[in-house]
Amino acid sequence: MAFDKVSRDQDYSKWYNDLVVNADLAEHSAVRGCMVIKPYGYAIWEKMQQELDRMFKATGHSNAYFPLFVPKSLFEAEEKNAEGFAKECAVVTHYRLKTDPEDKSKLIVDPEAKLEEELIVRPTSEAIIWKTYKGWIQSYRDLPILVNQWANVVRWEMRTRLFLRTTEFLWQEGHTAHATKQEAIDETNQMLNVYAEFAEKFMATPVIKGTKTENERFAGAIDTLCIEGLMQDGKALQMGTSHFLGQNFADAFDVKFTNKEGKQELVWATSWGVSTRLMGALIMTHSDDEGLVLPPNLAPIQVVIVPIYKGVDQLEEIAEKALAIKSALEEKGISVKFDDRDTHKPGFKFAEWELKGVPVRIAMGPRDLKNGSVEVARRDTKEKETLLISDLPNKVQHLLESIQENLFLSAKTYRDNHITPVNTWDEFKDVLENKTGFISAHWDGTGETEEKIKQETKATIRCIPFDAEEEAGSCVFSGNPSNKRVLFAKAY
Amino acid sequence: MAFDKVSRDQDYSKWYNDLVVNADLAEHSAVRGCMVIKPYGYAIWEKMQQELDRMFKATGHSNAYFPLFVPKSLFEAEEKNAEGFAKECAVVTHYRLKTDPEDKSKLIVDPEAKLEEELIVRPTSEAIIWKTYKGWIQSYRDLPILVNQWANVVRWEMRTRLFLRTTEFLWQEGHTAHATKQEAIDETNQMLNVYAEFAEKFMATPVIKGTKTENERFAGAIDTLCIEGLMQDGKALQMGTSHFLGQNFADAFDVKFTNKEGKQELVWATSWGVSTRLMGALIMTHSDDEGLVLPPNLAPIQVVIVPIYKGVDQLEEIAEKALAIKSALEEKGISVKFDDRDTHKPGFKFAEWELKGVPVRIAMGPRDLKNGSVEVARRDTKEKETLLISDLPNKVQHLLESIQENLFLSAKTYRDNHITPVNTWDEFKDVLENKTGFISAHWDGTGETEEKIKQETKATIRCIPFDAEEEAGSCVFSGNPSNKRVLFAKAY
Repeated sequence: MAFDKVSRDQDYSKWYNDLVVNADLAEHSAVRGCMVIKPYGYAIWEKMQQELDRMFKATGHSNAYFPLFVPKSLFEAEEKNAEGFAKECAVVTHYRLKTDPEDKSKLIVDPEAKLEEELIVRPTSEAIIWKTYKGWIQSYRDLPILVNQWANVVRWEMRTRLFLRTTEFLWQEGHTAHATKQEAIDETNQMLNVYAEFAEKFMATPVIKGTKTENERFAGAIDTLCIEGLMQDGKALQMGTSHFLGQNFADAFDVKFTNKEGKQELVWATSWGVSTRLMGALIMTHSDDEGLVLPPNLAPIQVVIVPIYKGVDQLEEIAEKALAIKSALEEKGISVKFDDRDTHKPGFKFAEWELKGVPVRIAMGPRDLKNGSVEVARRDTKEKETLLISDLPNKVQHLLESIQENLFLSAKTYRDNHITPVNTWDEFKDVLENKTGFISAHWDGTGETEEKIKQETKATIRCIPFDAEEEAGSCVFSGNPSNKRVLFAKAY
Repeated sequence: MAFDKVSRDQDYSKWYNDLVVNADLAEHSAVRGCMVIKPYGYAIWEKMQQELDRMFKATGHSNAYFPLFVPKSLFEAEEKNAEGFAKECAVVTHYRLKTDPEDKSKLIVDPEAKLEEELIVRPTSEAIIWKTYKGWIQSYRDLPILVNQWANVVRWEMRTRLFLRTTEFLWQEGHTAHATKQEAIDETNQMLNVYAEFAEKFMATPVIKGTKTENERFAGAIDTLCIEGLMQDGKALQMGTSHFLGQNFADAFDVKFTNKEGKQELVWATSWGVSTRLMGALIMTHSDDEGLVLPPNLAPIQVVIVPIYKGVDQLEEIAEKALAIKSALEEKGISVKFDDRDTHKPGFKFAEWELKGVPVRIAMGPRDLKNGSVEVARRDTKEKETLLISDLPNKVQHLLESIQENLFLSAKTYRDNHITPVNTWDEFKDVLENKTGFISAHWDGTGETEEKIKQETKATIRCIPFDAEEEAGSCVFSGNPSNKRVLFAKAY
C-alpha cells in the first residue's frame, strides 16, 4: 500500500507498473518475462473469461483442449505461420534430468534423454489443431467445427511488460473449420463483433473495428480483423484479432472434405483470440493516480462496506447493520465485501479499496446508524452522497449501472477527441508527438510506405477501419493517390 | 459409431480405449503421450471444474496463475521433490528456431539461442510457487494464503493411457501457507474431504479416504492423504491427493514470518490436486458394454429427445411438442438436447446417445403424440416407461435424482463386495488374482515388505484407511506384528 506514487503525467509507464503490482494484480516471476497473476488480478480475468465463454457458447462454440507441444515437423508445415513465430519459440529438447556427477545436490540435463524431434511450446495452436482436424473431417456433414480453447501460450519476447507483453500468457483461441469461404468469412466477422461487444459492454472500452494491413497480418492469415482501443497516454492497443485463414492450413495439413456433390474440397478456416493483454487495456482505459478503476461489470468486488468505529461494541452494532445491507445487496446480484479488519484504520482501507478499483464504497459510522443512513462514494468520479439504508439496494444498483455507463462515455469522449484527421506530413508528426492518439490519414497502400513511416515515427497502421469512407486523397507520406483514410498510432 | 465392440469381459483395456475414442471424449495426438480432449469430453471436465471450483471458493480459496516454467536452480531447491520428478521432466533449452541452411523449407534449433539456465516445464508447481510466496509473506498477518491454480502440467511418462496417464494433463493444484502446523494439517484434511464429497456426490464414485505409506508419498511431503476408488475391473485408482508438506518448502525457499510474539518462524504448507484422471475414474466406475454411463450431476446433456417420424410433416408436428417439453424441462434446470438431425435414423441415434452416456432418453412418435405420452428410457438400468407429457418435468427430475443415487449405490455395492479381508499369503494371492479388488490385510509397516509384495504381485498399498481399526495381527507377508489392516490392490 505505501508506495512512492508516481502520477500518470510524470511517468505513465512507471505508474502502470506500480499500479499492477500494488493493486495486487500481477508481478514479475523468477522466470524471465513470465508473470504471476495474483488472486485479485486473476479474479478479474475470471470474470472476463466467464463472460467471453458465455458469448462463445451462445454463438455455437464448444471448448476443447489440444497439446501444449507442437512437434517441429508440424510446426513448419504452414510456412508463413512457421516463419512468423520461429524467432520466438521455446523449444523442448530433452525429457529427463539426472544428478550432476560433480555435485550431487545439483541436477543436469541428461544427454541420453534427447528427443528425436524437438517440441515447440505452442506460440499459437493452428498447426497442432489442423493436424487433429484432419482426423475429424471427412464429409460436409462434419462441418462446421466450432471449437475454442482456453490455454497458455509462449512467445519468447525480448522486452516484456506485465499483462501487455509476457513470454507466457493466458488466452483463448478459437479455431473453426467450414465448408465454404463465405461461411468462414462470416465467422471471422461474427467473432470480431463478439470481441467488440465484450470490450464495450463489459470493459467499458470503446474500440475501432477494422482490417490489418498486410504487414501487420497474422502469419498465415489471408485477412486479419482487429479491435483497437486507445489508452490514456494516447497509445493504441490491439485488443483482439479474428483471422480469416482461407485454405492455408487445410492445404498444409491436407484437410479435405467430400462436398454434397461428392467432390473433394479443401476446408476453410478461421482463428480468433484475446488474451490477458485485455487486463492491460482495462487498466489503461480507466485508472487514475489513486489506482485502478474497475467497470462494475468486471469488478470481483462491486461494493465495499467500511465500518468507522471506536471499540468492539460499536463495531458489533455496525457489523449487524452492515451484514444486513450486504445481504440486501447480494439479493440484487451485487458482490459485496464487508471490511471488518481490526488491523487497519478506515483511512487506510479507503485508500486500499481505491487502489483496487472497487466501484462503490459505503462508509458506516455510529452517527450514520442513528440516522439510518450511510455515506456512499463512487470510485470513478469520487462523488459522495448520503443515502437512506432502506434505499440502498435500488440506489446502489442504479449507481453501478451509472458508473459502467460513465466509464464508457468518458473513455469514448477521450478516444473520439483523439482521432485526428491530418493531411500533411508535418501535421502528422506534430499530432503524433504533441496530441497523440489515432491519426486518420491517407496512405498509398504499399507496405514500403508503411515501413518508412514506422521507421521514422514509430507509428504503425492500426487498422483500415470498417467505416472508413471512400474519399479521394493523396498519401500523407508519399503523395501517391489513396481512396480512403487509415488509422495510424504509436501502439503497445 | 460403427466400431468393433469389445465387451468389458473380453478386454477391459481395449474396451476403455475404444469407449474414450468412440464416445468423443479424447484421442491420442500427434505428440507422443499427449491427448486431445474433444468437445464432449471437455464439457464433462468443465462440469467437474465448475463444481470443484465452487467448493474451493466456498472453503475460502482464490485462484491465481504461476509460470509454466521452473528454472532448474529453483526446481532442485527442495531435494526430495526434485529427485522425485527429475526423471520425467520436459526441458526447454533453446528459445529460437532458424531456417535450416541445408533446406530452406525446414527449421532447426538455433544453437546461438541456448538458454543460460534450462527451464523445466512444471510437473507440479511447489518450487515456483514457494519462490513467489517468499515475497508475499512477512508477518502472521499475511497468513494463511489459500490459493488454487487450474493449469496444465507435464510429466514424461513412458507408458500412457488416455486420461489415466498422459504426458501433459490438466489439473488443479492448491498451495496453501499457514502460521501453524495444526492449521496446515486441518487444511490437508479439509481438502481431502472436499475431494471425497465431490467424488461421491457428483461422480457417484464411492471412495476410501486414507493415508499413503512412505513409499507412495508425494515427493517432498510429510504426509500424503488420498481418496481411492475401485474400478469395474477390480483395479484401484488414486483419484485425488492432499499433502501436508510441513516446513520442507519453506525451508528450501527460506520463507519465514514474524509471529505475534515478534519471532521468525518457518511457514507451514499444504498442496492438493485432482486432474483429468478423474475422467478415467468416471468412465471406469459406471460405463457398460454399450458405452459411457454418466451421472446426471456431471452430464453435459441430461436428457435427449429423439423424434420418430416419417416425412417432414410428422417431424414438424413432433418438433413443436418436443420443443415445448425441452422448455419445460429447462425451466427445472435440466439440460436437454432435441436431436432432430435428418441425416440419421432413430436406431442410430439411440445407440449414439447410449454410447455417449446421456442419462435419460425420450422417444416421441406420432402415436405418442395422440396419447399425450412419450417413452422414457433411463441409461443406467435401461428400463423404459411411458409417461404423460404433462408429468414430465417432475418425473424426469425425480428420475435424474434416482439415476444419480442408483449409480452411487451400485458402485458402492460393488466396491464394498470387493474389500476382502485376508490373513494368509496364499489367500492374498488368490484373492488378488481371482476376485480382484481391495485386500484388507495386516502389514508390518516396513517399506521393504511393501516393496517385496509389489515385486511379487504388482499389488501396492493403496492407503492406510482413516477408519482402520486397532487390531493385533501379523503381517500377511513377513509374519511380523501389525496393529492395523491396510488396503492392497493392483492399481492404475
